[in-house]
Amino acid sequence: MARTRLSSFRSGCGVDYNAIFEGAIERLHAEGRYRVFVDILRNKGSYPNARCFAGHNGARPITVWCSNDYLGMGQHETVISAMEAALHDVGAGSGGTRNIGGNTHYHLDLEAELAELHGKEAALLFTSGYISNEASLATLAKILPGCVIFSDELNHASMIAGIQNSGAPKRIFRHNDVAHLEELLAAEPADVPKLIAFESVYSMDGDVAPIAAFCDLADKYGALTYLDEVHAVGMYGKRGGGISERDGVADRVTIIEGTLGKAFGVMGGYISASQTIVDVIRSYAPGFIFTTSLSPVLVAGALASVRHLKDNNAPREAQQTNAAALKAMFSDAGLPVMASTTHIVPLMVGDPVKAKRISDILLIEYGIYVQPINYPTVPRGTERLRFTPGPFHDQGMMEALTKALVEIWDRMELRLAA
Amino acid sequence: MARTRLSSFRSGCGVDYNAIFEGAIERLHAEGRYRVFVDILRNKGSYPNARCFAGHNGARPITVWCSNDYLGMGQHETVISAMEAALHDVGAGSGGTRNIGGNTHYHLDLEAELAELHGKEAALLFTSGYISNEASLATLAKILPGCVIFSDELNHASMIAGIQNSGAPKRIFRHNDVAHLEELLAAEPADVPKLIAFESVYSMDGDVAPIAAFCDLADKYGALTYLDEVHAVGMYGKRGGGISERDGVADRVTIIEGTLGKAFGVMGGYISASQTIVDVIRSYAPGFIFTTSLSPVLVAGALASVRHLKDNNAPREAQQTNAAALKAMFSDAGLPVMASTTHIVPLMVGDPVKAKRISDILLIEYGIYVQPINYPTVPRGTERLRFTPGPFHDQGMMEALTKALVEIWDRMELRLAA
Ligand SMILES: Cc1ncc(COP(=O)(O)O)c(C=O)c1O
Ligand SMILES: Cc1ncc(COP(=O)(O)O)c(C=O)c1O
Repeated sequence: MARTRLSSFRSGCGVDYNAIFEGAIERLHAEGRYRVFVDILRNKGSYPNARCFAGHNGARPITVWCSNDYLGMGQHETVISAMEAALHDVGAGSGGTRNIGGNTHYHLDLEAELAELHGKEAALLFTSGYISNEASLATLAKILPGCVIFSDELNHASMIAGIQNSGAPKRIFRHNDVAHLEELLAAEPADVPKLIAFESVYSMDGDVAPIAAFCDLADKYGALTYLDEVHAVGMYGKRGGGISERDGVADRVTIIEGTLGKAFGVMGGYISASQTIVDVIRSYAPGFIFTTSLSPVLVAGALASVRHLKDNNAPREAQQTNAAALKAMFSDAGLPVMASTTHIVPLMVGDPVKAKRISDILLIEYGIYVQPINYPTVPRGTERLRFTPGPFHDQGMMEALTKALVEIWDRMELRLAA
Repeated sequence: MARTRLSSFRSGCGVDYNAIFEGAIERLHAEGRYRVFVDILRNKGSYPNARCFAGHNGARPITVWCSNDYLGMGQHETVISAMEAALHDVGAGSGGTRNIGGNTHYHLDLEAELAELHGKEAALLFTSGYISNEASLATLAKILPGCVIFSDELNHASMIAGIQNSGAPKRIFRHNDVAHLEELLAAEPADVPKLIAFESVYSMDGDVAPIAAFCDLADKYGALTYLDEVHAVGMYGKRGGGISERDGVADRVTIIEGTLGKAFGVMGGYISASQTIVDVIRSYAPGFIFTTSLSPVLVAGALASVRHLKDNNAPREAQQTNAAALKAMFSDAGLPVMASTTHIVPLMVGDPVKAKRISDILLIEYGIYVQPINYPTVPRGTERLRFTPGPFHDQGMMEALTKALVEIWDRMELRLAA
C-alpha cells in the first residue's frame, strides 16, 4: 500500500520519492555492498553451533565464527537462570523510563556492580552501547562551553554520532597516534574544555590504544578522557574490567563506556565515571531520559554475567588460547591474517564482492558462518572476514575452518593476491 | 577516583570541569526539577501491585499508577512463556548486529507480524522506540536531497533528536494545527522533498492528531508522512494497529513508528513502511546498523504480545472503561483533570515543586506511586501528575486514589488554585 502511495507522487507532485530511495539502494548493489542478513538461531547449550534458515527449507546446522558473544556468556546457565528468575519475579519489560516507573532495583544493583568493576563512583545504564556513546558524548560536549573533541580516526559510528550531534568542534587524530594527538591538543588554548574520545580494543583490526600515553596528554593539556571498552569489558583485566584494568589505568580515565551485549552476552550499554558526571548525563541526556529503560530481565542477566566474569578468569584464558591458535593456523596456511594483538582474528580480502563470495561459499558449502565486513564498517578497499574464536570453538572446528578457507582461497586464486 | 582526578584540574589547567558539571546539577535543584528515581520492583502476576525500596528498609507494597505497560502485557503468561522458551532455545543475547551474527528467525517473524499489523510491506526492528525515531528521521532527511521537515511543536524528544541530527531545515507547526501546517507546506517550492512528522496520541496530554487531515495535506503538497504511534499501538484499532487503524488511514501514512515497550509490555522499537523505505533505513541508518540487535528473548516476548493483542479486544476495552471511570471520579471530586480523549489521565499542577511534593506524599503516606512530570518532558508551568489506569486497576484502587488526592489537594490548599 505504501508503495502505491509513493508512486502516486510521480504524476502529481514535483518529487519522485521512489526514484530517490531506489537510487540509494541501487548504489549499494553497484558497489557490491548491499547487505543480506543471514537468518540464524543459536542452539542454547551447544554454542557455537546454530541453525541457519538461509537459502533452503528448514533449519540447517552451522558453526558460528563471527559472534560478539565472545565468551559464550549468552548461553551460560548462571545468566539464563538469573533471567528466568527475573521474568517470573517482575515480568517482561520495565514499563517506563527510568524516571517514570522504569527504575527497578535490578538497575540500581547493576549500576553499582559496574561502577565497582571499573573503580568509579557511579555508573549509568542505557538501552545499548550505541546510545550510551551517542548520548554521553553529545551531552558532555554540550554541557562544557566551547568544548573541543579529539577523536581517533577509527572511532566507532556511535561515538562519531555523539560527536557530530553535539555540534562541538572536533579534531580527528590519526589512529592510536600519540604524537598527532599532542599536536592537536597543543594547538588549542588552555582554557578551552577538551575531551579525548577513543576505544581500547578496535574490533575490526584487533589492535589496542595506548591508554596511559593518552592519559598523560590529558593531564598535560587539561583534557577529559572518554574510553569505549565495548570489545574489552569482560575480556581483559583480572576481573573483566577491560584493557584499562589490565593496564592499571582505569582510575586515570574520566569516563569508561561499555556494552552488556558482547562478552557479557546480553544487551544494553553503560558508562561509569564520577558521581557528578553520571548525574549530569542522567539529568541531561535525551537518549537516556526519554526511553523505556532496559528490561529488568536483561539487567538481571547482565548482573549475573558481570559477577561471574569478575570471579572467573578461565573463559578469558581459554579464549586467548584459541585466538592465538587460530591466528597461528591461518598464518601457517598462508592466509592473510591481519596483525591483531587481541582476541579478534581478521583476514584481509580487500574487495567487497570477493568477501561476500567467500562468506557465501563458507555458509552454503561448509556450514561455516562468518559475515563479510564491508564499508562503512571498515574503509573501502579493506573489506575483510572477521573471526571471533571463543572458548567453545574446539580444535576440530578450527581445523575445519582453516581447511575450508585454504580451499576457497585456492579456488578463487586469492592466495597470491593476498 | 574520577573525582580526585577532576579536582586536580582546578589547580593545574585552565578549565574547572567539576564546577561546570556541578553548576549544571545545581540549576536543576534551583528549579525544583532535579529527578529522583523511585526504586521499585513490580510483582509479576499481581500488577499494578509492586514493591518500593525508597526511603525505608526493605520493600514496601505500593500501587503503580504511572506505568506505560498500559495493558499489563509485560506480566501476561503468553508473553512470559514465549520469553522463557526463547531463553532456553537460543540464549540471552543475539551476540551481534543484525548484519553480523545478530539476525535471528525471531527478528524476521516479528518484522513480518508488525508489517501485517499496519498493512505495510515491511517493518524494521530497533533496540528502542527512541532510536527508531532518531535513526529513521535523520536517515530519511539525509537521503532526500534538500528535504524540509514539518514537525508538530509537541513532538517527542526522540523525533526532535532525529530531526536535529539530520541537519535538514525544519518548520515547526502549532500542535495538531492543520491550517498552520498547510501554511508552512504552501510556503515551500513543489519540487522540494517534504516530510511531515507527528504523533497519534500525545502521551502527556492525551489528545490525538488529525491524521486524515494531515494526510490530505501530504497528498496536496507531495509530502511523506511519519507517524509516531508509540502510545497507541496495541491500544487502538480492532487489532491494536493504533489510531491509524482505528481511523482507517494506515494505508495513507508513509511510515508508522511504534514501540514494543509500552502496551506490548516488553522493549524495543520499530518502523513499518514500504519495502523500499525499510530497505533504505536498514542500509543507511547508523542507529540501526552499528548496534547489537534486540535480544531474541525480547523479540519472542513482543511477538507473543503483538499476536495476543491482535486477537483480543478485551484488554483495550477494559482499559478504556477504567480510564473513563477515573476521569469521571477526578472531575466529580473537583480535581483539575485535563481534557484527554484517550486512556491517559493527566492532572494539572503547574509547579514542579508542588508536583513533586504531591507525588512524595502519595508514595510515602498512601503507598501510591505516580511520578511528577516536569520540564523538559512538558513545558515549564504545566507540570502535572499523569495517571495511566489499566485493565487491572480496580474500583477500590481508583476510589483510594481519588480520596488520597482530594485529601492532599485540600491539605496543600490547591483546590481553588487549580
Ligand atoms: C566500539 C563499539 N562501540 C559501541 C558499540 C555499540 O554497542 P552496542 O552493540 O551495545 O550498541 C559497538 C558495536 O556494536 C562497538 O563496536
Ligand atoms: C511519543 C514517544 N515516542 C517515542 C518514545 C520512545 O520509545 P521507547 O520507550 O521505546 O524508546 C516515547 C517514550 O519513551 C514516546 O513517548
